[in-house]
Amino acid sequence: MNGLHLIADIYRCQPKGALLARRDALETLCVGECRGAGLNPLGAYFYQFEDDDGDPAGVTGTVVLAESHLAIHTWPETGDVTLDVYVCNFSRDNSDRARRVFQRVIDALAPAETVRHEVIRGRLPVEA
Amino acid sequence: MNGLHLIADIYRCQPKGALLARRDALETLCVGECRGAGLNPLGAYFYQFEDDDGDPAGVTGTVVLAESHLAIHTWPETGDVTLDVYVCNFSRDNSDRARRVFQRVIDALAPAETVRHEVIRGRLPVEA
Repeated sequence: MNGLHLIADIYRCQPKGALLARRDALETLCVGECRGAGLNPLGAYFYQFEDDDGDPAGVTGTVVLAESHLAIHTWPETGDVTLDVYVCNFSRDNSDRARRVFQRVIDALAPAETVRHEVIRGRLPVEA
Repeated sequence: MNGLHLIADIYRCQPKGALLARRDALETLCVGECRGAGLNPLGAYFYQFEDDDGDPAGVTGTVVLAESHLAIHTWPETGDVTLDVYVCNFSRDNSDRARRVFQRVIDALAPAETVRHEVIRGRLPVEA
């Protein structure tokens, strides 16, 4: 379960098209970038929020990977997004693949500012 | 997008039944605990890994919430699990609900040791 969890809070995005408010486009981006980086999507669930007029609003979704998961949530009204990419390194080191997906999704979102965190998963601080 | 992300790496679990290796049981637990805490599941995708003999092995899954997501990955061969519960506080403060789900799922897993992290999401360190 040793792995790398990349976390980003992404502000004031101005992507091409209505990416933040369109489930299909966001799911296609996320699943495609996972595949493109050599990770293995097993399934995905993306949900389209709508505003009071029934127009597309935010999107929230996850891609379940053989290597763990990607999760994304968007707030089109402010252009903000949160993104997680977590890969375990069970059968091989997937860290570079995770970094590639993470950066490519961030680049597609065209943000003004990104705050990042990294969490190393599955390493006991003191071996029990 | 201000929110709370709870992260746990959970070691040497000895839950009742074969929870770590059974997709249905793990999904029922996770979705049920989210609902029980007052969070709103929109959908879930859980995947059953199988060993070389076709018997149930690990499970990986996510619950997509109106409030963000829960993600869980299990390694039954060692009894280890990683768990994420992330809630945004868009329309109300969901932090207590997140803490409740997180602790109840950990309790159900009956681990020998748990390493926890918390990440505050969506707060710029310096207002731009």
